[in-house]
Amino acid sequence: MTLPDVKAFVFDVFGTLVDWRGGVAREAAPFLERHGRSAQQADDFADAWRARYQPSMERVRSGQRPFTKLDVLHRESLEEVLREFGFDPAQVPAAELDELNLAWHRLDPWPDTVEGLTRLKSKTIIAPLSNGNVRLMIDMAKHGGLPWDAILGAEVAQAYKPTPDAYLRTANVLSLMPEQVCMVAAHNSDLKAAQACGLKTAFIPRLREHGASQASDLKPEGNWDWVASDLVDLARQIGV
Amino acid sequence: MTLPDVKAFVFDVFGTLVDWRGGVAREAAPFLERHGRSAQQADDFADAWRARYQPSMERVRSGQRPFTKLDVLHRESLEEVLREFGFDPAQVPAAELDELNLAWHRLDPWPDTVEGLTRLKSKTIIAPLSNGNVRLMIDMAKHGGLPWDAILGAEVAQAYKPTPDAYLRTANVLSLMPEQVCMVAAHNSDLKAAQACGLKTAFIPRLREHGASQASDLKPEGNWDWVASDLVDLARQIGV
Repeated sequence: MTLPDVKAFVFDVFGTLVDWRGGVAREAAPFLERHGRSAQQADDFADAWRARYQPSMERVRSGQRPFTKLDVLHRESLEEVLREFGFDPAQVPAAELDELNLAWHRLDPWPDTVEGLTRLKSKTIIAPLSNGNVRLMIDMAKHGGLPWDAILGAEVAQAYKPTPDAYLRTANVLSLMPEQVCMVAAHNSDLKAAQACGLKTAFIPRLREHGASQASDLKPEGNWDWVASDLVDLARQIGV
Repeated sequence: MTLPDVKAFVFDVFGTLVDWRGGVAREAAPFLERHGRSAQQADDFADAWRARYQPSMERVRSGQRPFTKLDVLHRESLEEVLREFGFDPAQVPAAELDELNLAWHRLDPWPDTVEGLTRLKSKTIIAPLSNGNVRLMIDMAKHGGLPWDAILGAEVAQAYKPTPDAYLRTANVLSLMPEQVCMVAAHNSDLKAAQACGLKTAFIPRLREHGASQASDLKPEGNWDWVASDLVDLARQIGV
């Protein structure tokens, strides 16, 4: 496919561009130690927190609750995870939980992320199409140097992926047809939903997103427009 | 005022950060010449186009029409201006009008704009709070090198300034209280509306926005939190 067809690349962020598991575990470890737990539980803590991600958004997607920022969903899920790990959340200062919740704002990019985004930005519009809210994405970009042209995604669209409106309203905000926008993700399910809305698709495997024993999204499982080993390889394939 | 109180600076754009009159006239001149008019009408053409700006948004603010992107309002106003200048818009190829409409995407920043924004960005969040739509702001940022952290404003808020929702929803998207956000503008009326919503305010005069005979907004006309000669001076006052 020639680049002139695609005017904007939009990106899944958690897992595709940044290491959420490592970043959350890094901040959970000292929290657990301060409260008499082992820092070795930190990876499990991150996994348990992330396991509540889809269910928390599903209550919005299904209409059970109005659109609610991911920061708020993360904070609610944190209290549930604390109970799962034997804490009484009411016994932990709220300010300490608010601070731990910001771990999601300070996730590190994968090594190829900034170079790949910078190269793609030289010829196209780049923006996150994440379920993370705008402030979370701003803070993460400042933390990791992600050179976004704009912050788009679920909060601007008022719809969580994989709801079609999340993709279609993002194209509309960009004043582009869906086929002029390419969704980049490490998750086949995200690309499947984007493709169903008419967007172009690019798959980048992230084989350690879930740690050494990852079993999902090890390879492309659809007819994606691009498959690249990482973001720099994607930029190279596109010729930027 | 100490900086820690303010976490984000949001900016009026047309006039405050970029020279809309010079930029539109620059593209109107060759258009007028191609169609047998004098290029010397270009400043008047820009003024006439801009004169339709507030009335076009007023139909949205008053509820007469649903929220409509500024690009669409500009394109409609362009046909009205053409008639005012003795054109039959139907006799001009639509593609040529679409291209002229993009003059608003290619406005140049004032000389102090990029340095001022870059300095403010080093310690705070910076975003446009313009009535211009997201794609317009993205293209303008790429054209002029405006280093935004995010693109906010009327389209994200789904409300045109000076409607309170334009300011309040912008603060909400930033997960900030209104008083943690400072509105920067060359227009006293914009600051008055922002202040009424609880935002901090900074006034920057732009004495040539409307050309040599400008009569409005020559000085601060309210109790603004900062008054600076330009954006670099504002950054200096804030200590960044």
